[in-house]
Formats: sequence, C-alpha cells, structure tokens
Amino acid sequence: MNNRGEQVIGELFRRINTLIADYDLTYDEYQVAQQWLIDVGQAGEWPLALALFEHAVEQQAHKDRAGSQGTILGPFYLPDSPVLDLPYELPHRPGEKGDKLLMTGRVLSADGTPLDGAVLDVWQADADGLYSGFSDLPAGLLRGKLTTDTQGRFALRTIVPGAFTIPHEGPVGRLLAACGWHPWRPGHIHMIVSADEHEPLITQLYMDSSDYLDDDVASAVKNSLIVHPHRHGGQLAFDYEFRLAPLRAAVPAG
Amino acid sequence: MNNRGEQVIGELFRRINTLIADYDLTYDEYQVAQQWLIDVGQAGEWPLALALFEHAVEQQAHKDRAGSQGTILGPFYLPDSPVLDLPYELPHRPGEKGDKLLMTGRVLSADGTPLDGAVLDVWQADADGLYSGFSDLPAGLLRGKLTTDTQGRFALRTIVPGAFTIPHEGPVGRLLAACGWHPWRPGHIHMIVSADEHEPLITQLYMDSSDYLDDDVASAVKNSLIVHPHRHGGQLAFDYEFRLAPLRAAVPAG
Repeated sequence: MNNRGEQVIGELFRRINTLIADYDLTYDEYQVAQQWLIDVGQAGEWPLALALFEHAVEQQAHKDRAGSQGTILGPFYLPDSPVLDLPYELPHRPGEKGDKLLMTGRVLSADGTPLDGAVLDVWQADADGLYSGFSDLPAGLLRGKLTTDTQGRFALRTIVPGAFTIPHEGPVGRLLAACGWHPWRPGHIHMIVSADEHEPLITQLYMDSSDYLDDDVASAVKNSLIVHPHRHGGQLAFDYEFRLAPLRAAVPAG
Repeated sequence: MNNRGEQVIGELFRRINTLIADYDLTYDEYQVAQQWLIDVGQAGEWPLALALFEHAVEQQAHKDRAGSQGTILGPFYLPDSPVLDLPYELPHRPGEKGDKLLMTGRVLSADGTPLDGAVLDVWQADADGLYSGFSDLPAGLLRGKLTTDTQGRFALRTIVPGAFTIPHEGPVGRLLAACGWHPWRPGHIHMIVSADEHEPLITQLYMDSSDYLDDDVASAVKNSLIVHPHRHGGQLAFDYEFRLAPLRAAVPAG
C-alpha cells in the first residue's frame, strides 16, 4: 500500500499530533491512552472499538451505489448461520422472550426486477441484547439463512429484538463512560442480502418503537432503514423491499 | 476525566471520521487497520507505537519549563538501574564494541546554582542498537545511576551508542515500511536527571556524528541535545550542562 500508506497514515499521524497540541494532552493522559490500547487488545475488543468508525467507512464505500441503502456489518456476524427450512423462522428457545415479529418482503434488482433465489443471511440479538456466538446463548440462536421465491418474496418469523447495549464492562465501555456517552443501539435486525450478479447488501432494520434511533452509539441508523411494524393477529409485522445493485461490469482494459 | 474525555476523545473521533471521508478509506483498509491493531497488542508493541507520538506530548508538557530542554522517555526505560560506584562507568562486557566515550558535565539549577547530590539515571543501547532488559543482553548492561559532587559535577565512562533501529520486524515496523519510512534513530544516550526541589529532566543526548539527526523516526531530536564529542587521548569526550527547573511552589487556594 506504499504511497497510499504514507498519505493516509502520515496524515493520521499529523492529525493526532495536532490534537495533542490543540488539547495540551498530558503525560498522565498519554499513560491512560497506552493502558487503554493494551486493555482493548487483551479484552479482544478491537473489532468492537473499530465498529464505532465503521459507519464512516460504510458511507464512503457505498455512496454511489444503486439500490437500497445499507449500513454497517458490526462485530457480531458469523458466516455459518443455519440454513432454514420453510416456513422460515429464526431458531429460538421455547417461550423465547420478546414480541413475536413477522418480517415479510421482497428482494429486487435496482430496476425492480424480482430476484428469485436471493439469500437473506439474518442475525439479531435476543430480547436481552445478547448474540449467540458471543454469549452463553445456544449456537445458531436467532441466526439463519433463507431464500426468496420466484417472485423474490420471503417471510420470516422471529421476535422483536430489544434495544442493544454494546459490551460495556470492558475498555470500550469504559471509554464511552469516560466521555459521558451511553453504550446503546436501537433494537435492530441484521441481514446480508445477496443474489447472483448483484452486490451483496449489508444492512440492518431498526424498530421504530425503539429508543436510541437518534443517538445510536454506532451512528449506523439511516431513515430508510427504520421499519414501522403494525400489530396483526397477535404479532407485530412489517414488510420491507430490498433493492440490490447489479455488479458493475468489468471495465475493459485500454 | 469526564468532560475532558468527551472533548478530547470526541474530537479524536471526529478527526478520524473526517480522515476516513477525506481519503475514501476502503473496507479492505479497515480490515488491515483492524488486524494491525490486534497484532500490535499481541506483539506487545503499544508502548513502542505510542512512542511515535510521545514527542508531541513532551513538547506540550514542557513548553514553559525553565532550564534545559528535555525530550521523550521512550519505551526502554527500566526503573531499577544499578547504582554505580566511583569512578563511574556504565556496566559493559569485556571488550564491549564501540568507541570509548567520556561524558562529563554539571547539574545546575535553572539559575546556575550547582546541585550537589543530583542523580543521573542513564541508559543506552550497545553498538548494535540493543537495550538490556529488552534483548538477550545481560541485565543492567549499559544502565546505571550516578550522583553529582558538591560542585554539581560528574564524569561517566561508556561507549558511543550506535544508530538505533526501533524493533522493525513487528507490526510497528510493518507500518513504517508500508509508509516508506525508515525505522532509525540517531545514536543517543538517555538520562533522567533529578535533584531535590527540582523537576526531573527526562532527556537524551545525540552524537553529532550520527546519521538520522534530521529524520529521527521518533521525532525527538532537538538542537540543544546534540553533543559534539572530540577525541581526547584515545577516547571521545564531551561535556554537557543540565539545568533543572525548580519545582513550582504549590499555589495557595483562593
């Protein structure tokens, strides 16, 4: 990454040095920073810490992309989610806590063509804000892959995710607390929507009833990602249309 | 550190986010950054990585201090250096590589008053750029504490330190290489000079014959810290005067 490295990292160094001068950073604070950096590694929290900046990377990466807006992947994705059978329902425990939720929708190409056989890889926290694979929850809980029908349609039963607090007992949480910032994210469902010949869409849908829509600690909420579930025969339900950007044709050389 | 934390860290976050946008940082680069941050912790290199910013902290901390200029502590200080006996000579191996060097000088208060019983805690790399305690060198090698006489005078025999390369096989070295930066520091001797009722002076003296005086990777060279040894009966010798700032009187409340 030679020249690029010098540009970006050189500029990062200059900005950090300027910040140190602008704010008269003290040696005590330098020591605190050093211990914090060491602690983040020891707690395995670098993916979490960097997730606080992912929104800026995501916005740059997708600013000119056709189709639906996406948002950050976050640090809790696992590639090997269970492949679900029809009728689709995310794996859960008997009497899983939280309101029942039906998510229906379609996957289309950016021009509106329905995408048959598109895959939604879905993951979410339980009502207590815990993710399987990163907690004591059973492996694969509230994770699953499903496929659209010939009309690009799908329907998935799950539960309403609770508002989610990022891990806040470790060094990242201590940093937020030291700044007087809360560690909360609004309740959300993650998904990667993919189909042949299209760019995968990494996104999250946010419940309109959730707190923290306006001050998500991860800065990842966008208006087009907020869904408005309505009550429908004992459960909440919403519908969402995903539009995927066709892969860009390779530009011929010369 | 509440309000201060929010100010400094909030501003750091804003500057990093702006940098991401200014340079169109990609997801691939985000992944490289994440892996690098993880690697630095696993290699135990945070003190080394932060030492690249210590010069900025040091300059802020001491910008209004009376007496001699100091510079960065660096990551290779150890508190328990051997206490030397007269005549002072840093512990070394038989036939230690490198030109013999005699450092003489005085420790004075900022107003010129000689300081009797001031302590110099000295450490340096060997001719190959290795520090005891951070290499296979014998413990305590080329480290030692000595005391000034009633006139504030001292004399110490050692060897000329070689130009020093910071550890460059780990993640910090990889970062420098990716930027096309070299990992070298000019040959230098570290010391902390302390005396009752005075602020300790953390400093380094640089050999005028060394390369890298103008592009020290640690940005820690200052003109007043460059010494000009002359040849004197089979050895090199230089003289240096340290002036310490008196402790500031505690400001009475109200």
